[in-house]
Amino acid sequence: MKTTLDICADVGLQMLAAARPIARQYFRAPLTVERKSDHSPVTVADRTIETAMKAVLSRQLPDHGILGEEHGATALDTRYVWVIDPIDGTKSFISGMPLFGTLIALLDHGQPIMGIMDMPMLGECWIGRKDLGTLLGRERCSTRQTTALKDAILFATSPDQFKGDDADIFDAISRTCVDRRFGGDCYSYGLLASGHVDLIVEADLQPYDFLPLVTIVSEAGGRITDWDGNALSLASDGRVVAAATAQLHAEALDHIAKTRRQNVA
Amino acid sequence: MKTTLDICADVGLQMLAAARPIARQYFRAPLTVERKSDHSPVTVADRTIETAMKAVLSRQLPDHGILGEEHGATALDTRYVWVIDPIDGTKSFISGMPLFGTLIALLDHGQPIMGIMDMPMLGECWIGRKDLGTLLGRERCSTRQTTALKDAILFATSPDQFKGDDADIFDAISRTCVDRRFGGDCYSYGLLASGHVDLIVEADLQPYDFLPLVTIVSEAGGRITDWDGNALSLASDGRVVAAATAQLHAEALDHIAKTRRQNVA
Repeated sequence: MKTTLDICADVGLQMLAAARPIARQYFRAPLTVERKSDHSPVTVADRTIETAMKAVLSRQLPDHGILGEEHGATALDTRYVWVIDPIDGTKSFISGMPLFGTLIALLDHGQPIMGIMDMPMLGECWIGRKDLGTLLGRERCSTRQTTALKDAILFATSPDQFKGDDADIFDAISRTCVDRRFGGDCYSYGLLASGHVDLIVEADLQPYDFLPLVTIVSEAGGRITDWDGNALSLASDGRVVAAATAQLHAEALDHIAKTRRQNVA
Repeated sequence: MKTTLDICADVGLQMLAAARPIARQYFRAPLTVERKSDHSPVTVADRTIETAMKAVLSRQLPDHGILGEEHGATALDTRYVWVIDPIDGTKSFISGMPLFGTLIALLDHGQPIMGIMDMPMLGECWIGRKDLGTLLGRERCSTRQTTALKDAILFATSPDQFKGDDADIFDAISRTCVDRRFGGDCYSYGLLASGHVDLIVEADLQPYDFLPLVTIVSEAGGRITDWDGNALSLASDGRVVAAATAQLHAEALDHIAKTRRQNVA
């Protein structure tokens, strides 16, 4: 008999089957780029994909709640809530870069129990399910065994994510690592789950950016929290640390706390 | 009858046919990463690809000169010199990111007359030939008609490329643009040639990084020089500006010169 998680995984994959051809159709096509109040770009592709994904969900699981990037929230007080980002990496999308993804999280009483990340132009799809591991396609994912910042390859989407003290904190920890790289958006979390990247430190993210990544990272053996070590939720402040191992994660949190104390002093 | 450029384009594509399977074989495989004197990473993949490409060239065109990233130079005083980068974006390569490319330039008396950029994991290949235009696969490329910094999407590989005054110059010009994005390596020049990105400002590049991009950009209608407006050559200082239009390029040079004067004053 199918579990709720089995049924939801099927629905998630149906949502992606609706989303993927729209993303591919609009990619590198002439598009009008609008700017939202925070100056972030949005196009008809983002909105059309979200509408198509919501249509699948409301047909298959009409009682579930949903939070989308573009069209807002419904029924967030129900047990199961879906959080979707039609195009994570819209700046990549509008620049012809194939590093954008479609993200889905399923929350059970507010806790992420499933995460899906689909890369329409790369043909890669990660799915993490609570207690069932993370898959890239059919391949089981596991994080790398890096335990020290000095050996870690660090990713972030952009240095422009970090305002005020956060910029000092990020600068300090990223320069402790063997390499720091920018430009990943969601994709770097998939690379972390698959054992190619060790550490991601970000800020200024929204719940639809990070909640889909939680189960993908944790079920691959990694650890992902906010900068204070708290579990990520709809109420998180948008600061995220994801690490290949618990030990690396602990060293990263210590490093963040140390820089923060020095800034206050 | 085939021209020299026709023959050389054939040889370039044969070099890529030798390079591509090696890149694909090593991508995301366990690899020992060594660090060069400038701390940049190198692997057996870089060296094996360069050896395979040189073998094709010396078999087909034994009188031509060659400069490679990993194995140095031979016969740089001949009329035709090939400049090759087996893996541009080694940091992407070792992080499992598919945004690395194999680059080839052909110089005639020191002037780039052909550039090829192959993205082994993305299945995309740009080729620019002097007076013959730029192709992505079989599709003719042309740059976007953006003429003002305020409307431009700017790319650079990393903020860490810019040392001392260059950091101020980059920061000033990039904040004038509508978006600034990091992480492109060579790929962003292909996106510029294909009309998706408007401006690239970089520093600390090597001849094998930028010479293969010159003909790709210029034959698509863009303009690419150093920060002072000089044509790029083996003797360039590693600072590069590539723009979708001559007008945008001129505004970028003016902006760079203005910040430089302010820094001196």
